[in-house]
Amino acid sequence: MKHYTALVFSAHAADFVWRCGGAIALHQARGYEVTIICLSYGERGESAKLWKQGNTTLAKVKKARREEAENAAEELGAHDIIFLDQGDYPLELDRESKYKIVDIIRKVHPDFMLSHSRFDPYNTDHMYTTEIALETRMIAQAWGHNPGERVLGAPQLYLFEPHQTEQMGWVPNVLLDITEVWDKKRKAIECMEGQVHLWNYYTNLAENRANHFRRNSGGQAGGRPAKYAEGFQAVFPRCVDEL
Amino acid sequence: MKHYTALVFSAHAADFVWRCGGAIALHQARGYEVTIICLSYGERGESAKLWKQGNTTLAKVKKARREEAENAAEELGAHDIIFLDQGDYPLELDRESKYKIVDIIRKVHPDFMLSHSRFDPYNTDHMYTTEIALETRMIAQAWGHNPGERVLGAPQLYLFEPHQTEQMGWVPNVLLDITEVWDKKRKAIECMEGQVHLWNYYTNLAENRANHFRRNSGGQAGGRPAKYAEGFQAVFPRCVDEL
Amino acid sequence: MKHYTALVFSAHAADFVWRCGGAIALHQARGYEVTIICLSYGERGESAKLWKQGNTTLAKVKKARREEAENAAEELGAHDIIFLDQGDYPLELDRESKYKIVDIIRKVHPDFMLSHSRFDPYNTDHMYTTEIALETRMIAQAWGHNPGERVLGAPQLYLFEPHQTEQMGWVPNVLLDITEVWDKKRKAIECMEGQVHLWNYYTNLAENRANHFRRNSGGQAGGRPAKYAEGFQAVFPRCVDEL
Amino acid sequence: MKHYTALVFSAHAADFVWRCGGAIALHQARGYEVTIICLSYGERGESAKLWKQGNTTLAKVKKARREEAENAAEELGAHDIIFLDQGDYPLELDRESKYKIVDIIRKVHPDFMLSHSRFDPYNTDHMYTTEIALETRMIAQAWGHNPGERVLGAPQLYLFEPHQTEQMGWVPNVLLDITEVWDKKRKAIECMEGQVHLWNYYTNLAENRANHFRRNSGGQAGGRPAKYAEGFQAVFPRCVDEL
Amino acid sequence: MKHYTALVFSAHAADFVWRCGGAIALHQARGYEVTIICLSYGERGESAKLWKQGNTTLAKVKKARREEAENAAEELGAHDIIFLDQGDYPLELDRESKYKIVDIIRKVHPDFMLSHSRFDPYNTDHMYTTEIALETRMIAQAWGHNPGERVLGAPQLYLFEPHQTEQMGWVPNVLLDITEVWDKKRKAIECMEGQVHLWNYYTNLAENRANHFRRNSGGQAGGRPAKYAEGFQAVFPRCVDEL
Amino acid sequence: MKHYTALVFSAHAADFVWRCGGAIALHQARGYEVTIICLSYGERGESAKLWKQGNTTLAKVKKARREEAENAAEELGAHDIIFLDQGDYPLELDRESKYKIVDIIRKVHPDFMLSHSRFDPYNTDHMYTTEIALETRMIAQAWGHNPGERVLGAPQLYLFEPHQTEQMGWVPNVLLDITEVWDKKRKAIECMEGQVHLWNYYTNLAENRANHFRRNSGGQAGGRPAKYAEGFQAVFPRCVDEL
Repeated sequence: MKHYTALVFSAHAADFVWRCGGAIALHQARGYEVTIICLSYGERGESAKLWKQGNTTLAKVKKARREEAENAAEELGAHDIIFLDQGDYPLELDRESKYKIVDIIRKVHPDFMLSHSRFDPYNTDHMYTTEIALETRMIAQAWGHNPGERVLGAPQLYLFEPHQTEQMGWVPNVLLDITEVWDKKRKAIECMEGQVHLWNYYTNLAENRANHFRRNSGGQAGGRPAKYAEGFQAVFPRCVDEL
Repeated sequence: MKHYTALVFSAHAADFVWRCGGAIALHQARGYEVTIICLSYGERGESAKLWKQGNTTLAKVKKARREEAENAAEELGAHDIIFLDQGDYPLELDRESKYKIVDIIRKVHPDFMLSHSRFDPYNTDHMYTTEIALETRMIAQAWGHNPGERVLGAPQLYLFEPHQTEQMGWVPNVLLDITEVWDKKRKAIECMEGQVHLWNYYTNLAENRANHFRRNSGGQAGGRPAKYAEGFQAVFPRCVDEL
Repeated sequence: MKHYTALVFSAHAADFVWRCGGAIALHQARGYEVTIICLSYGERGESAKLWKQGNTTLAKVKKARREEAENAAEELGAHDIIFLDQGDYPLELDRESKYKIVDIIRKVHPDFMLSHSRFDPYNTDHMYTTEIALETRMIAQAWGHNPGERVLGAPQLYLFEPHQTEQMGWVPNVLLDITEVWDKKRKAIECMEGQVHLWNYYTNLAENRANHFRRNSGGQAGGRPAKYAEGFQAVFPRCVDEL
Repeated sequence: MKHYTALVFSAHAADFVWRCGGAIALHQARGYEVTIICLSYGERGESAKLWKQGNTTLAKVKKARREEAENAAEELGAHDIIFLDQGDYPLELDRESKYKIVDIIRKVHPDFMLSHSRFDPYNTDHMYTTEIALETRMIAQAWGHNPGERVLGAPQLYLFEPHQTEQMGWVPNVLLDITEVWDKKRKAIECMEGQVHLWNYYTNLAENRANHFRRNSGGQAGGRPAKYAEGFQAVFPRCVDEL
Repeated sequence: MKHYTALVFSAHAADFVWRCGGAIALHQARGYEVTIICLSYGERGESAKLWKQGNTTLAKVKKARREEAENAAEELGAHDIIFLDQGDYPLELDRESKYKIVDIIRKVHPDFMLSHSRFDPYNTDHMYTTEIALETRMIAQAWGHNPGERVLGAPQLYLFEPHQTEQMGWVPNVLLDITEVWDKKRKAIECMEGQVHLWNYYTNLAENRANHFRRNSGGQAGGRPAKYAEGFQAVFPRCVDEL
Repeated sequence: MKHYTALVFSAHAADFVWRCGGAIALHQARGYEVTIICLSYGERGESAKLWKQGNTTLAKVKKARREEAENAAEELGAHDIIFLDQGDYPLELDRESKYKIVDIIRKVHPDFMLSHSRFDPYNTDHMYTTEIALETRMIAQAWGHNPGERVLGAPQLYLFEPHQTEQMGWVPNVLLDITEVWDKKRKAIECMEGQVHLWNYYTNLAENRANHFRRNSGGQAGGRPAKYAEGFQAVFPRCVDEL
């Protein structure tokens, strides 16, 4: 029996929750094993609340963010979450770190991958992460990289929804119904105690993407009554037997 | 048991053959009923060989083109082919003609539609056809158009491959394996006696799109050995349960 | 004292409510006179609920939609609402109708105009309306059109937010804080009894656009605490004395 | 000996002067016969100065604009200038008028064509003219249009420089050195007595495009010392024997 | 009383003069304190005249370019000009250098920032500078970067006009009237003794941008009579109370 | 007598063969001296067949790839082929390596350059190579880089055809007839023993690009009967005396 897997690239510890928490929970529920790579904890740039409280250290902030992310991953039922601790604002990876990611890709051997939008003028870590995702995907496909290892095929790369989509040039071409796992996603969201101001935002968004799902699946003449959805932009053409 | 259908918009009599003949034959083979609408015969602009022979008339050219198209549709096993005879170079439809197309759309009630690329500086009939496809799709969705009729849902519109894709801004996001019906497509192509110079072109193209299919389905690490393929650009996001 | 005015193009009766109801109410509150032109009632294509009830006529539907739109305009405090009754799905204007719009533009002499996005594959009436807005703006600027009349200057054209923004290629470059008039917009929304399924959608959207407003006005280091906002895409460069 | 010809589409009487007067004069000087089609006189929309003087009529304005255009064409040494008098703001052509243009295209049998940019939110007549240029080029290529006539090949279509290029999405991929005919272009410009405010503008522009010519032909390491240039955007790929 | 500031990123010593000298002088005149960061002197790549004279050294060229830039900054009345001396052709910054820029950003705490276009195939230093501007803006917003320091809000980033705008994909959405400070900009331009060939170019450009300013502020029906202007592309949406 | 030269950037050893082998052979036949720079051997990522055979080493694979590339260059009659051996998957160059390339550029002093497409989500080495081509072209133009050396002018950069053009945003604006050198290109292709699956692909492609050449040079009304062609995207505007 085929074993299905997926791999998520998250620039900072919390990104995977807001942007594809539903996809993670849903695919786990469908039998996939979903692994999350957090390239950084978002300790410097996405932990304002902790720093505002004062009297803290980088180590403490990282620890707090890691716990939040682990709790969220658990709520989503993720198979695994890996922290690379590469630093944020800015995130920068050397060749060794890239090879570590290639090792993970080859080990997970994902049926599909998830990452950030290609462009983000607000947050260069996000677009850098997708550069890394494309580069490491390519290396994992090289027969001459660690010869003898199982070589990666050509998994789809889905770009999950960025904040302020239009400014990022992100256009969803797939809408995923996450109604059945919404409770899990909401619980994972609530693990992000440092970013309470975003809980309602991403709930609104999931409801509105469900409206898009209903429209694109038939509208008032029979659209499917999804209540919560997530959008994704597939980078590569998909290969089918039937349109 | 659900009855599946598809609807193809062809600006001129032969367009459907080169651009989506494989999709037509394949879906027929899968149990779909595929209906083709030829908005014109391409009698003025795409029948150079007949006109060069001289001693002919518009009526004769139309007849010849119609026969070719009917033969091709038969080779593909198409459910139906409808000729609207709206004239070509330029193609222009009035409101009544649009309503006739709406009638066809509602009658066929397609699960998906196929049409030309959105932009074509070489051939304005092609892009006009897609404007019409979008406009009539919208009208067919209106509850107030011929109230009481069954209203159209939200079928996907796939844009089939134009000639000189890059000049048209066309980007395929779906690749369809047509290997099993290639013989039918090739026979349909050979019905186009006035355009022999294109037979080899579209055979080459199908082989090369199959190369793309193999790459995107896994490449040298397990890509599917498709021999012939067609590319399509889906206009609307697709709605899924699983990525 | 300068008299400020604005002019809104609404393809169908309800469009102005969802998409720029806040801008209308806010500018009225600031002393502008805002005039709305509804090119159609949306009687065929955007009145599904009424047609589903059955036992109705086009005239009745138009009447119902008109009343809703008038009520909404009143809630927003709009200066005037004009119904051109040009039909919908599809909307089509002849030269005389365009000239009527030019007459309105010249009479209102707007400081800015509002219309739909430039592209909309779901709804060709929407993009057609913006073509008309640009064309009639140009005619209103012609010194030789009804010579002697006051000629239009160069008012900005703002494109208001379409449904499924990313599919329309719409990118907001202006965010407007509508917190102080949100109650009016919500009341106007509630006038749209045939489209209850959209009330929550556009409330979510206004909240989320306010999040964008907060981010772009300073974020966690002093962003303005807007609660509701609307986004717009300015078509023309703006002329300033200071950046 | 081959006879070379070119054909210019000018939406309004003066457009050809500002935008490609240099190309006209230069190609005439090189032995081409350049024919200009003015689709309208720009009588309503581009004759503000005449209308401001008052006490005039449409007929008088047309006459004045025609004379200016004829004078300019003469200064440029143009082979022919044809006035179609189709009205402006807005410009609209019916099928018969399109066929008249096809007749001209076939008679001139141009080696290349010139027209406006594809997009122009300020002036919809401009972009409409290029739609017409593409459509009539296509019809002129149809063997079934007036069978027996000499059929058009595939002349390049160059889009000349619009006002406010960046707003029009126009990108020049050809720079033409017009230094040797600059005096003629300047004289033609000075025929446009109603638009004195543009004389300096287009002189500045020609000087600055020459700077671009110098840069792209070698810069400080040997760029050609052009003093005046014009930019064009070729629509179709060019076919060459050598890069 | 609020203290207004602005920060300019200049890849090479002279860039700020041609591209935003007017904005600098104007905002100084309006009470802003404008700080300029020159990432390099343009000593290798933009000092051809000095190198052609021969008998010089890198140190001498840097000194000459620095003096020119200081003189120009003084003519413009700039508050401060900082030279980072990071080398040019190519410009490359390490993490420490980025942090120095972050320090400057936080110290200046700009109300808006200015930098190069996002793309420039002629000059990769230019686009690299804007990558740095976006990255350092992000770092300056991080609460965990040098905790305790005042964190940056969300200042607008304006991209100033590149050479050959259309090749850079740069589109101005703001036009600034610099008539009142034109004399200062011209004097600053004349400080650039090594680039006399550009003096006329940028004077022409300022005149032509003023034409655009007049058109977009009302045209022949009341446009403002600006004589010199500069164009800018705002990267982020602006947040307003009124359209 | 002027001496003409061209310079080709090839990320991996075989790229130049498939993508511009015809241009190389043709220009050599026309008297140009064409130099090829292979930045890497493609030893890790594009040598699957060798690695699949097993029992090999990186050194052996490099050697095999080098021999293939040298043989191919010889079949094409290339003037010179230079191997920089910078490693692949990923390819990365430090400053010293860039300077080596600058040395080559200055020595060759090319009339035009060739490189990969600007974007390639499948293969980041490809787009990186074009970044390097633009950056080193810029450095080679700097009068202050190795003062005294002959400075580069402004050679055109042509982007050759990538695999799956539409996914790369590559649009050809030049079509080159390579019929007379096709045999040489085919022989060069057949040197690539590790990539037999691509021989037919690139033969099909050359035939189909010839179809485009025929269309764009006149179509059925006199297009030139090219049998094999290659497409290129010129990055910079070309400077001409005649359109």
